[in-house]
Amino acid sequence: MAEPATATQAAAPVVALLKDELDIVIPTIRNLDFLEMWRPFFQPYHLIIVQDGDPSKTIKVPEGFDYELYNRNDINRILGPKASCISFKDSACRCFGYMVSKKKYIFTIDDDCFVAKDPSGKAINALEQHIKNLLSPSTPFFFNTLYDPFREGANFVRGYPFSLREGVPTAASHGLWLNIPDYDAPTQLVKPLERNTRYVDVVLTIPKGTLFPMRGMNLAFNRELIGPAMYFGLMGDGQPIGRYDDMWAGWCTKVICDHLGLGVKTGLPYIFHSKASNPFVNLRKEYKGIYWQEEIIPFFQQAVLPKDCTTVQKCYIELAKQVKEKLSKVDPYFDNLADAMVTWIEAWDELNPTGPVPNGKAA
Amino acid sequence: MAEPATATQAAAPVVALLKDELDIVIPTIRNLDFLEMWRPFFQPYHLIIVQDGDPSKTIKVPEGFDYELYNRNDINRILGPKASCISFKDSACRCFGYMVSKKKYIFTIDDDCFVAKDPSGKAINALEQHIKNLLSPSTPFFFNTLYDPFREGANFVRGYPFSLREGVPTAASHGLWLNIPDYDAPTQLVKPLERNTRYVDVVLTIPKGTLFPMRGMNLAFNRELIGPAMYFGLMGDGQPIGRYDDMWAGWCTKVICDHLGLGVKTGLPYIFHSKASNPFVNLRKEYKGIYWQEEIIPFFQQAVLPKDCTTVQKCYIELAKQVKEKLSKVDPYFDNLADAMVTWIEAWDELNPTGPVPNGKAA
Repeated sequence: MAEPATATQAAAPVVALLKDELDIVIPTIRNLDFLEMWRPFFQPYHLIIVQDGDPSKTIKVPEGFDYELYNRNDINRILGPKASCISFKDSACRCFGYMVSKKKYIFTIDDDCFVAKDPSGKAINALEQHIKNLLSPSTPFFFNTLYDPFREGANFVRGYPFSLREGVPTAASHGLWLNIPDYDAPTQLVKPLERNTRYVDVVLTIPKGTLFPMRGMNLAFNRELIGPAMYFGLMGDGQPIGRYDDMWAGWCTKVICDHLGLGVKTGLPYIFHSKASNPFVNLRKEYKGIYWQEEIIPFFQQAVLPKDCTTVQKCYIELAKQVKEKLSKVDPYFDNLADAMVTWIEAWDELNPTGPVPNGKAA
Repeated sequence: MAEPATATQAAAPVVALLKDELDIVIPTIRNLDFLEMWRPFFQPYHLIIVQDGDPSKTIKVPEGFDYELYNRNDINRILGPKASCISFKDSACRCFGYMVSKKKYIFTIDDDCFVAKDPSGKAINALEQHIKNLLSPSTPFFFNTLYDPFREGANFVRGYPFSLREGVPTAASHGLWLNIPDYDAPTQLVKPLERNTRYVDVVLTIPKGTLFPMRGMNLAFNRELIGPAMYFGLMGDGQPIGRYDDMWAGWCTKVICDHLGLGVKTGLPYIFHSKASNPFVNLRKEYKGIYWQEEIIPFFQQAVLPKDCTTVQKCYIELAKQVKEKLSKVDPYFDNLADAMVTWIEAWDELNPTGPVPNGKAA
């Protein structure tokens, strides 16, 4: 597992599950090998590439892929003044892709993530596992000690209430990574050589009321159920903070899923995370987040959404209000972020005019 | 993994961690192979065997084990009228062993649990893994996506609050089982051939606020931190219910650990669960539990302990009071159980006169 799979290993014929219902969103592609490596798995799907930096640079997409590419000029043109809610020169811009997609499911991945191998040496079709995770229910209300009860060969153990065995719809599937662990800058500096080599063969529902540090590098979600909560915030160029985009989306998503009775899973699939980012650069991007999160996390742990918040949009606007009320005292940044959260929802609804989806029931 | 390890496979030299601080509690031994199989791992430790049935029958313990054995006559003699809180003809009687132990740690195991093999074929020293689990902190307040951060080669991922990285003391370590899954009678009847063959290489802290179905077949705990909550209830002979002893202890333990800021882990180690119990007998024992648990679990999920409950004993007496108030309407059985919970604490304090241990700090 210390090496990614090769393109040949990954080249087995692939059944493209949900081919017409899923978009793959990628924030810029700097690595030309990236799409070649994933070709057998990704080629059947439509790609949405959101270029995070200088729009005058060209991203080369290899032959044979069906894709649309948005750069900053496109984002400005499509959203007008509301483009202010989309980060610039930061992979957080990927969430623009969630907004313009017309599909039910999104898979998003970073260009430093390659195909991982399972313990038998087989190339892992990450997308297939995400789809399995999204299509089977979650169990956030009680812990099943033998893990995912919907997996083949598994079930609910003795003592699991029968009334909870139907589970709830799964809104998000959070995949993991082998090789380079995703550490904060201080841990990177202290443990530069640590690698994640342990393949843990499990998918778990994160229990109701429990928050987790979500990553955007290998993430899938049901856009109809939770899309408007997947806002990656204001990061990068002109902002006092970076590397908290996915975390922000994760905190908001989990609080809203808990409120609406939706599930979030973590575990399989693994991807191979190839590149450690520079810990010194990361430290500069992160240092405010490292102390802000000591107040942000208790804020989200205690956040309560009123009963009349019956759609993701309503929940998100309410969260924006609470962010403004309670986090602006931490830093004026949160005042701007709360405004951007509202702008994001306005832009979402403009591009997705079918209206809000009540409590996870698709229109 | 479809076969248990043999005694030879298990015979590697064993370092007996915590040898003078841990007792192994076993509820009756019907299977003569059981102790032979575990000899390399258990022989260094002191065993407490609590015979669950007819006291005139003799349990044969192979040569070389250091043990004490209690039958019903002993329990009656030692506890007098308070012996009423200890179940008869049911493995729930094992909790008497927790009470008479003078050690800091307890490991309890059933006699149909053999030594399992890890994926490399190596015999698993379950006790060693439990000790590792108990001696390293738990992280109940936030989910670490790469699992146990205290394991070698692991750490907290980016976004894990630094203020929570010290963790909290671990009160209990819940091990799992390969081969026969521990299903309720209806699931046993529906899936008689299902076997658990999946070795999941993980130890997890069960998050604060989340309940789980605890098993007594492969369980270790810190007696000083949580011992008085490990009461296995009134089961078996003369009672309307069976097979809910460990579950009851698990619900009470988890609520009290959450209140006192202690951790409960589940996952490794695995044992090899050799024998499926009879589903028809189980159905008779369980059927009331199957509908009662639909009210018991919400009761425990909503249970709040007042701030002045600063010891396990105080918490447990308070829980007994709430059981009487809120579950007696489900069935008069819970009225008796609530009384037995109080008797259990009285008996515990009588046999352990050093007094209650405030909030996990050992005297």
